[in-house]
Amino acid sequence: MGTKIGIGLLGLGTVGEGVAEILQNPQGRHPLVSDLELIRIAVRNPKRVRSIKVDESILTTDPQLVVDDPSVDLVVEVIGGIEPARSLILRAIKAGKSVVTANKAVIARHGVEIAKAAAAEGVYVLIEAAVGGGIPIIEPLKQSLGGNRIQRITGIINGTTNYILSRISDEGIPYGLVLKEAQELGYAEANPEADVEGFDAADKIAILSGLAFGGQVDRSSIPTKGISTLQNRDIDYAKKLGYWIKLLAIAEQKDLGELEDGSFPLAVRVQPMLLPFDHPLAGVNGVNNAILIEGDPVGKVMFYGPGAGSGPTASAVVADILNIAGVRKLGSATSGLDPLLAAGPWRPCHLVDSNSITQKNYVRLLTKDTPGVIGCVGSCFGKYGVSIQSIVQFESSELGAEIVVITHEVTQGQMKNSLQEIKSLQEVVEVVEHLGCL
Amino acid sequence: MGTKIGIGLLGLGTVGEGVAEILQNPQGRHPLVSDLELIRIAVRNPKRVRSIKVDESILTTDPQLVVDDPSVDLVVEVIGGIEPARSLILRAIKAGKSVVTANKAVIARHGVEIAKAAAAEGVYVLIEAAVGGGIPIIEPLKQSLGGNRIQRITGIINGTTNYILSRISDEGIPYGLVLKEAQELGYAEANPEADVEGFDAADKIAILSGLAFGGQVDRSSIPTKGISTLQNRDIDYAKKLGYWIKLLAIAEQKDLGELEDGSFPLAVRVQPMLLPFDHPLAGVNGVNNAILIEGDPVGKVMFYGPGAGSGPTASAVVADILNIAGVRKLGSATSGLDPLLAAGPWRPCHLVDSNSITQKNYVRLLTKDTPGVIGCVGSCFGKYGVSIQSIVQFESSELGAEIVVITHEVTQGQMKNSLQEIKSLQEVVEVVEHLGCL
Repeated sequence: MGTKIGIGLLGLGTVGEGVAEILQNPQGRHPLVSDLELIRIAVRNPKRVRSIKVDESILTTDPQLVVDDPSVDLVVEVIGGIEPARSLILRAIKAGKSVVTANKAVIARHGVEIAKAAAAEGVYVLIEAAVGGGIPIIEPLKQSLGGNRIQRITGIINGTTNYILSRISDEGIPYGLVLKEAQELGYAEANPEADVEGFDAADKIAILSGLAFGGQVDRSSIPTKGISTLQNRDIDYAKKLGYWIKLLAIAEQKDLGELEDGSFPLAVRVQPMLLPFDHPLAGVNGVNNAILIEGDPVGKVMFYGPGAGSGPTASAVVADILNIAGVRKLGSATSGLDPLLAAGPWRPCHLVDSNSITQKNYVRLLTKDTPGVIGCVGSCFGKYGVSIQSIVQFESSELGAEIVVITHEVTQGQMKNSLQEIKSLQEVVEVVEHLGCL
Repeated sequence: MGTKIGIGLLGLGTVGEGVAEILQNPQGRHPLVSDLELIRIAVRNPKRVRSIKVDESILTTDPQLVVDDPSVDLVVEVIGGIEPARSLILRAIKAGKSVVTANKAVIARHGVEIAKAAAAEGVYVLIEAAVGGGIPIIEPLKQSLGGNRIQRITGIINGTTNYILSRISDEGIPYGLVLKEAQELGYAEANPEADVEGFDAADKIAILSGLAFGGQVDRSSIPTKGISTLQNRDIDYAKKLGYWIKLLAIAEQKDLGELEDGSFPLAVRVQPMLLPFDHPLAGVNGVNNAILIEGDPVGKVMFYGPGAGSGPTASAVVADILNIAGVRKLGSATSGLDPLLAAGPWRPCHLVDSNSITQKNYVRLLTKDTPGVIGCVGSCFGKYGVSIQSIVQFESSELGAEIVVITHEVTQGQMKNSLQEIKSLQEVVEVVEHLGCL
């Protein structure tokens, strides 16, 4: 089908091997795959035993050699981490080469710098594999939903935490034990912090938000709460009330808070949330991911699939490579960029004050087991305008009574103030947990 | 953002109005929408009262005037039906104009002719709105999953029948009554045949199959069974056994049956099927659609959303318009086509003999209520190698006993032969229903 496109691969871990596997076995795939030629691969250890056969002569331990190789037209970065990934991506751009990367950490933190450099050089930086593993989500957001005003993105976008929460929900095993098993199965890293504290999900929702709303928000200001301190008791109580608990990442348009410069107000957050059994995301279990997008006029569309793994991630990486190969068929790269594929920013966006975020809430209180305590808690919420959907006493023991409150939709400011006062009530021993609720 | 792209709209029904609404109100959408200018609209009755405001001077009753207008760069066909849609699409192509259409009937029947004409003239014919309403599915199949060997597509792709089956499942109301309500709500046509007999779903799976596997199959040879003769009793029994019944469209690769010319063997069919409660498609209710795609190496990905309606369909139409506008930014249309977006055929495909299709089966028999009847039926299935997963007697009355059999996966040929013999058994009154099962 014409001239070959030279691919340089940075990294030959599980994802890199998956990509090489596809490129080396094009038969039965889209014919454009046959146009791709793996020119050079940067690896840490050329002698390592691998699950696929690669020609040793194309391996090198110097990633710069891959980027600089004149036969490499397109650089695929799958080494992960911030450096040297960032520098290598910028070096490739500088050399006029398009880049495909699966690296959400680098894009969430240095996306603006990278996008600027790419626009200046007239090359693409595509990131389908950075969010949602094998799920086509970046491309639909960029190319298929452009006619919409996006209102909200709600995602289960971290497979590790979804696996852990699914196991706890189903089997009631303690968090520590599930985490250990997840680590043994390769679903969680030895240092699980980025996953279980919600940082990985925050990276990803920052990326999705930028594409959906047209402007980047400050990644470091996204309110983020993970699952490491979540207690099984809350998962049990939620289930009794008709909810699962999932780690959700949400980005939504806010009606109020537009800045004088026209900057668009967004509420973005990552937190464990209660999800009604009949919610479209409720059936998303194990390491699967799903992203629900609400827009006008499309309504609600959802994308579901494997959130990680060699094969799915490689599928997404190759999708990006093919897209670049596809537009290259139209002529030389110097004639401009497809604005949908390039996906540059098109309006300024900012995060609203987190106290103004509205949502339903789940609160678990440990109280003294005395009559009138429910009335007392109820009045205190009422004082701050927090209207209550349900209030249930679950257990009473020598420690006291456990009371679970589900509120209607209120601001986080109202919640903070009311919980502050509830904490100080004589009847209340402790505000044990406070989660969001859909 | 540069030169405007002139849009000619054929049809101003609900979808046409949705498209016009987006084009006339670009603010808050992707900036490329501002580049689109609605030049001329073909309508049946220019004086009709409409839900949107349109400049009367751009209305015409002659669709050819729209196609021929030199300021129209791109023709959007949303009149539906075979003619004059087919002729107008071909006329636009001949004039060197790309076409966006929501018309599954014309694409399923005349897709090859239209694609050939488009390739010859170097223009695009895009069809995102033809399948799955607002769900981005055509574009992900064409552009995001190209690195995969697709193995199977399983879709709930007709909203009318899914609405009817959901209502019957939930409320047990008779088919005729639900159909009447669906017609009143605008979910079903006055003549519901295309929906309830599965023809619309067959049009759509023919289109998806062509894109996923790279070659068109003969639309008229797709085995198609609708829901008009389905009895509530089967929906009840299925539920008791842990299944919903949904109208599914399936296209899958077959291992055997490659032809001498290398033509790729596919099993494509539309039929009501039993779906286990925990299947990813099980939660798809009402007029929603969903498409599950299985491929190597991506695994299973699913796309879910509103299968019809003005807003969702308009979202899909505008997605296609934007894609064409996006690649136009790269230079003149004469420099070639993006092979992913153009999605030409790349290998011959054909349907295998339907007797060789393998699946699990649901069979309901009315038998005499005599001891030994289950053994008798079981032996007869066994004789043809049909292995049984479960056999349950549900009811016995003066009419006899109702026996439901779920088989393991066997060929349809085995099923036909065994059911033929079972019909002739002295103990069996009638083979009442035979459905597929996932």
